Amino acid sequence: MYENRIRKTELEQLIITAEEAAMLFKDKMVVASSGFTKAGDSKAVLMALAERAKIDPLKVTLMTGASLGQGTDGALAEADALSLRLPFQVDPIMRKAINKGEVFFIDQHLGETANLLRANNFPKIDIAILEACLIAEDGSIIPTTSVGNSASFAALAEKVIIELNLSVPLSIRGVHDIFSTGEYPTRRAIPITKANSVIGTDSIAINPDKIVGIVITQKTDSPAEIEAPDAATTAIANHLIGFFNREVAKGNLTKSLLPLQAGIGKVANAVLTGFTHSDFEDLTMYSEVLQDSTFDLLDSGKLLFASGSSITVSQDYYDRIFADFDKYKDRVILRPQDISNAAEVIRRLGIIAINTALECDIYGNVNSTHVSGTHMMNGIGGSGDFARNSYLSIFVTTSVAKGDKISCIVPMVSHVDHCEHDVDIIVTERGLADLRGLAPRQRAQVIIDKCVHPEYQEEMQSYFDRACAERGGQTPHILEEAFSWHTSLRETGSMKKTVMV
Amino acid sequence: MYENRIRKTELEQLIITAEEAAMLFKDKMVVASSGFTKAGDSKAVLMALAERAKIDPLKVTLMTGASLGQGTDGALAEADALSLRLPFQVDPIMRKAINKGEVFFIDQHLGETANLLRANNFPKIDIAILEACLIAEDGSIIPTTSVGNSASFAALAEKVIIELNLSVPLSIRGVHDIFSTGEYPTRRAIPITKANSVIGTDSIAINPDKIVGIVITQKTDSPAEIEAPDAATTAIANHLIGFFNREVAKGNLTKSLLPLQAGIGKVANAVLTGFTHSDFEDLTMYSEVLQDSTFDLLDSGKLLFASGSSITVSQDYYDRIFADFDKYKDRVILRPQDISNAAEVIRRLGIIAINTALECDIYGNVNSTHVSGTHMMNGIGGSGDFARNSYLSIFVTTSVAKGDKISCIVPMVSHVDHCEHDVDIIVTERGLADLRGLAPRQRAQVIIDKCVHPEYQEEMQSYFDRACAERGGQTPHILEEAFSWHTSLRETGSMKKTVMV
Ligand SMILES: CC(C)(COP(=O)(O)OP(=O)(O)OC[C@H]1O[C@@H](n2cnc3c(N)ncnc32)[C@H](O)[C@@H]1OP(=O)(O)O)[C@@H](O)C(=O)NCCC(=O)NCCS
Ligand SMILES: CC(C)(COP(=O)(O)OP(=O)(O)OC[C@H]1O[C@@H](n2cnc3c(N)ncnc32)[C@H](O)[C@@H]1OP(=O)(O)O)[C@@H](O)C(=O)NCCC(=O)NCCS
Repeated sequence: MYENRIRKTELEQLIITAEEAAMLFKDKMVVASSGFTKAGDSKAVLMALAERAKIDPLKVTLMTGASLGQGTDGALAEADALSLRLPFQVDPIMRKAINKGEVFFIDQHLGETANLLRANNFPKIDIAILEACLIAEDGSIIPTTSVGNSASFAALAEKVIIELNLSVPLSIRGVHDIFSTGEYPTRRAIPITKANSVIGTDSIAINPDKIVGIVITQKTDSPAEIEAPDAATTAIANHLIGFFNREVAKGNLTKSLLPLQAGIGKVANAVLTGFTHSDFEDLTMYSEVLQDSTFDLLDSGKLLFASGSSITVSQDYYDRIFADFDKYKDRVILRPQDISNAAEVIRRLGIIAINTALECDIYGNVNSTHVSGTHMMNGIGGSGDFARNSYLSIFVTTSVAKGDKISCIVPMVSHVDHCEHDVDIIVTERGLADLRGLAPRQRAQVIIDKCVHPEYQEEMQSYFDRACAERGGQTPHILEEAFSWHTSLRETGSMKKTVMV
Repeated sequence: MYENRIRKTELEQLIITAEEAAMLFKDKMVVASSGFTKAGDSKAVLMALAERAKIDPLKVTLMTGASLGQGTDGALAEADALSLRLPFQVDPIMRKAINKGEVFFIDQHLGETANLLRANNFPKIDIAILEACLIAEDGSIIPTTSVGNSASFAALAEKVIIELNLSVPLSIRGVHDIFSTGEYPTRRAIPITKANSVIGTDSIAINPDKIVGIVITQKTDSPAEIEAPDAATTAIANHLIGFFNREVAKGNLTKSLLPLQAGIGKVANAVLTGFTHSDFEDLTMYSEVLQDSTFDLLDSGKLLFASGSSITVSQDYYDRIFADFDKYKDRVILRPQDISNAAEVIRRLGIIAINTALECDIYGNVNSTHVSGTHMMNGIGGSGDFARNSYLSIFVTTSVAKGDKISCIVPMVSHVDHCEHDVDIIVTERGLADLRGLAPRQRAQVIIDKCVHPEYQEEMQSYFDRACAERGGQTPHILEEAFSWHTSLRETGSMKKTVMV
């Protein structure tokens, strides 16, 4: 039935159903689950928990690697089963519950969750649910399409439930590289010196006494839904490719650049796709999520190898990749997210980080999370881990959203995820603002000239000029007007034609 | 005359006066200088440059480790000799010039400047001025009371002027630990695993062909002016000591805690002083600036050793410490600031970071730099390097400033240096808000209850309650009112009795 996937045979007696597993949870427990951007998540047990909560109310804290697939977050929110959620989510129902204040949400740097847990700066985990494709002879588990925080959860949780997923081919074994820095005060350096350094083991050790259940599943990951490049995202990609070409011409970079990181979303995907038809060669990737475009780049020979924490691809790509995974195995590495997103590795390797902004302001501060300063979109994810420590921190966004009712460049961002110090380059379909070596007032003029949509350019220039003339300072602002574009959006449905003082 | 301090004797012929050195600079040059929080800075040449600029106008870019002493920044600003200044300053005249827009200022994470330079993300340095107490036989230099960015400046500058300072005793030799990670794409890990790991050499190598002048000086560092603890700062220190005691009692920390970092300013000093009369023992420090209180702690036996990038002390302490520096030498290490402030070391060692805020908001975002969102105070310094990567990130501030006309806790900070993700604990003299494991709305209530001055508590509660009820979201805000406290300060001279809607 489970295809010889429990190699430590005495564990077979722990096989239970998802419904039985769901009964192991109690009100107020702290629950951890595998899963990173919809890959390698708990598919059976969390859903069964949502079902149970409907008839037998309980509320737990749920932490994961990053987002879950399967509509699980929505189901849990609808069942009112969560008091606290961290560190990331992308579910529309969950989002609504968070923004209503019904579910508390801790939006966290993805590289940090494991550190907080290991530092005892967060309550202890009662039960961890970990997806695996195999339980090895020594009782360790081979993860599936993501590593996420699973290694830390396994080490720190009091009890563990394994979701043994038979749909994931065993050829995936060997793609994972599990490493831990150990505990304070004797933590070790992370000995990664190249994007493809292998530093750990291929499985996650688990104390067998902790295992309280093994649930067999066959469900596959929710496929990624990636919008195809359009005129705007292609323009952004072209600006970036042009920039990299100029940096190579100047001798600042070679044709293989430095290891790339790209965030989620259609813009990041378009940028990576842009590399396929470029002159760059022998590229490498040290990122979080390996998407469709990553595999296109591997196939084209442009990309030598890719390191991440999950493989999150569309259904077609999934089928193709896992039909013959050996083809990719020595060019792909999946790491724990405190390693894929580790400040030390990002700084050491000199990552070129490309992440998406919801809005940027004239001084280069970036909001990636809170719509109009209040409403959570997804979360900061790993963007801060990369932006802060990268060789080059690039943020991309279209210049306008919702038609052109919203300008994605605003006088002052309504929430700051990435402060001006952590933003080197901003790109919209209008152009690329290279902010390196510029002071704030200089940054403002370049951003206005290069990135702002024409519809908003005059008003923005007027704001900046008046702020300089009337208020001055390092970052001139007219505080009572700084959010007037946002309040106008709220009151009139558009940022356009804000009445200026 | 220079007391056998030029051991590579053929360099003696390069001795010139400060005035001669000042003539080596040209308009538009990029100039780098040693100096970190007033210690080990260029004392003769930069001043001579300011003098020269008065009669023979020129404008240069000036980068340093951190702040300069001697009134140098003010003199340069008054002489209109600077176009761009980075990465930090504390001078009142310079501050004014920056805020008028007369001098451009790049406010930078102190750990990052060397990385940007090494990554070619900033124009090349034409001339570096480096204070040293000795030129060794091999032509390398022994720095004085700070290391700052001197090692990177020496490696990257086209030309070097050495300021040989005879006032610094040669017994300081051996306190410096110079290490470089090398260049992309083959950078190495920083092999520090304990606060007192010694990993490099005791001197800074310089290609002798680069040296264009040696200027002899006798000027001592500007002394630190540290305000004595008062009722408010003592209360803050006591809240923190109480917190650490509770963490030890819970078993989260031992009596030697984890390595401490403390920012500049009277609050940080009071906190460190508070440890002298505590039960903690075998403390260690991995910080930037070693202040009076550091040496008190070393003397008391509470502190085993201290690592930093500068020794910045008052005149009495300076005289005492350097009268018998051998007493401290094996317990003090001065490192390049890209090592003292390296994300990887801060994360690995598990630093307890204590920095000062100008203002915090109800969700825990911190402004350390921009008064009312516009006017630069000093700069972010190393606070971000530490806050982001520490084991515990603590921000301290008095609850009010300027009498009680300003509440240092505001609905929304007018500038974000440290986003909520990077702030674990906020302490005012009113109390300590432990924000670990809390979602934003929970953080807000704790901050209002524990940290806000009673004079402002009711208004703050009203703002938060109305923001939740009327607007909702992950971080409820009423955008058109979020800065009303600041605009009221501007219009009426006080944040008090803001007219609420
Ligand atoms: C910022 C982020 C939401 C953008 O996602 P995307 O899919 O690339 O971008 P889109 O342009 O489709 O924008 C998403 C939505 O936000 C809306 N939007 C964009 N800018 C907006 C703004 N300034 N104000 C309000 N809404 C805005 C879009 O209209 C769209 O709405 P819709 O879903 O109703 O159509 C996404 O990249 C993200 O969550 N980033 C943070 C996490 C992260 O960076 N992780 C990196 C490593 S994984
Ligand atoms: C934030 C910082 C300015 C506080 O300095 P400090 O000496 O501890 O604090 P003080 O309470 O004396 O405040 C300094 C001034 O700011 C004023 N101030 C404090 N809070 C204020 C607020 N919210 N709005 C306006 N002014 C404020 C004080 O009144 C005081 O003014 P004065 O000089 O006219 O008397 C200082 O710590 C700093 O520059 N930090 C950033 C760099 C850093 O953290 N480095 C860390 C590693 S070195």
